Amino acid sequence: MSLISNNRKPEFFIQGILKSDIAVLSRAITLVESQKETHQQLAQQILSGIIHKTGNSFRLGITGVPGVGKSTFIESFGKEVIANQHKLAVLAIDPSSTKSKGSILGDKTRMEDLSKNENVFIRPSPSGGTLGGLTRATYETMLLCEAAGFDFIIIETVGVGQSETAVSGITDFFLLLMLAGAGDELQGIKRGIMEMADALVITKADGENLAKAKAARAEYAHAMHLLQAAESGWRARTQICSSVNNFGMAEIYTMIVEYKQFVTANNYFFEKRKQQQYELLLKTIDEQLRHAFYSNPEIKKQLEQLKSRSEKENLPFSLGVELVKKFLGK
Amino acid sequence: MSLISNNRKPEFFIQGILKSDIAVLSRAITLVESQKETHQQLAQQILSGIIHKTGNSFRLGITGVPGVGKSTFIESFGKEVIANQHKLAVLAIDPSSTKSKGSILGDKTRMEDLSKNENVFIRPSPSGGTLGGLTRATYETMLLCEAAGFDFIIIETVGVGQSETAVSGITDFFLLLMLAGAGDELQGIKRGIMEMADALVITKADGENLAKAKAARAEYAHAMHLLQAAESGWRARTQICSSVNNFGMAEIYTMIVEYKQFVTANNYFFEKRKQQQYELLLKTIDEQLRHAFYSNPEIKKQLEQLKSRSEKENLPFSLGVELVKKFLGK
Repeated sequence: MSLISNNRKPEFFIQGILKSDIAVLSRAITLVESQKETHQQLAQQILSGIIHKTGNSFRLGITGVPGVGKSTFIESFGKEVIANQHKLAVLAIDPSSTKSKGSILGDKTRMEDLSKNENVFIRPSPSGGTLGGLTRATYETMLLCEAAGFDFIIIETVGVGQSETAVSGITDFFLLLMLAGAGDELQGIKRGIMEMADALVITKADGENLAKAKAARAEYAHAMHLLQAAESGWRARTQICSSVNNFGMAEIYTMIVEYKQFVTANNYFFEKRKQQQYELLLKTIDEQLRHAFYSNPEIKKQLEQLKSRSEKENLPFSLGVELVKKFLGK
Repeated sequence: MSLISNNRKPEFFIQGILKSDIAVLSRAITLVESQKETHQQLAQQILSGIIHKTGNSFRLGITGVPGVGKSTFIESFGKEVIANQHKLAVLAIDPSSTKSKGSILGDKTRMEDLSKNENVFIRPSPSGGTLGGLTRATYETMLLCEAAGFDFIIIETVGVGQSETAVSGITDFFLLLMLAGAGDELQGIKRGIMEMADALVITKADGENLAKAKAARAEYAHAMHLLQAAESGWRARTQICSSVNNFGMAEIYTMIVEYKQFVTANNYFFEKRKQQQYELLLKTIDEQLRHAFYSNPEIKKQLEQLKSRSEKENLPFSLGVELVKKFLGK
């Protein structure tokens, strides 16, 4: 049997997913990730068939710089999640990876215990591709997982680029993992990421590191306090944890439950979901319009000419109007 | 003679502006601000005729919440600027104003001394219109002022909306005015604005307020210190000042001179200008593409239908692709 089974009808996948058949789920995800036109068409038919069974999960985004211990955190925190009767899916976005199998989740060996659990599904991101493409694949993979009965989704990304914004745009809660460093605690964190975080968790708070982690927590709490409350009304929290001795995981889970209650009570939870969906639509429209515009050979040529001209020759506003008129054939 | 003089040729305006004729400059700005097609055409011809004489100014963006004392600050700081042999133009962006004459600069009476000085040109923003339109009018007004010999441009905006990003996108240096408050100093400041600032200046540091201003400065300096250095390599600074007794103005001017030297030495100054211009072009292209798309009656109808559907019926990515294909007639 081939991995993708072109000869299978959409109904095969839809029924398999709704019956929580993991093998079928995996193959449907491969279709979602595929760039092939026929695979994409089949993927869209499958998604249309399961969309009514989606949305019933908590979607948690996790980020942090390399070395912060994301995998061990997810391994430890994931156990807390399944101990609370959830079925957990772990997905990843890693636009920085270009190797053939270079996903940040690697070959699952980094989450050995979790990957053996029957209530856990781990799926590395496809390597390569654009961030927009990865976001789409991850979003649609999440929908497939939800339809297959996974009610807690973790989306992991590496904290080095624009992917945090993408993850924050498809999740309910955004968790930033930090290391207790020396001195300038926020150095290396991209501007704006701290402001997206609903919680900041300091990892490796064990042994000699515990005191440092506590001090860092106080400093972060102060810095976060200076920021305006998020649209949700939720004030970002700071926590410490240790993945090696499962310290702090129950508290983080409780915090997330409290968040869910808080934003359900003030109607923000579904409001945000709806808003996210609409923004994904608008973003897709933007991307598609831009793609059509910038891949137009005539436009390409003109933009090249502009670049070689000096600042004192260009009037950006009138040029923009002119180029779009030309593109739309007006 | 009519205010706009439709019957005048572009050469009349070009020559007048290059001879620093303020009456002609004012009338050219009115053309730039006008929404009328014939005025816009004339404005573009004038701009094409003076573009080679632009760019030779320092462009300073200033923002702060209402009540922070922007006008009195500009009145006091402006004197320092002209004392340093500059010709100063003060422009404003205020998208929040919808009254007929409701510009934040009002009738110039708020900057009485400056407005009487022959080396100063003050121009309120046109009221109404979109932020994009105001940005364009302000940018092109700035070019006209530069061509007329003004070598220090202040662009003022009220710190309540998106206009800060717009102002920061057309200026060399972005200055955030703050009040020393009680307790949570950063409350009320929109997320992200602090991160755009090249300097944070605490106003009204006089009398009983002086000690509070100094304490606030220390707190801000700490918070700013936690942020990553800007792309320029410049570390945002904090200052205190008092407009009523001209305290701190010389220091702020010196800081700006140091900034100019710093970013000239590392080539960031002209790099940023070039980048800003290219981004204005890209933004205009985006706006024009979007405008054409969203004003299309067929697209409008379809988007309305989508809104009434529930979250569990929409696949945002495939919908976006489909709508753009339809729009471009593919």
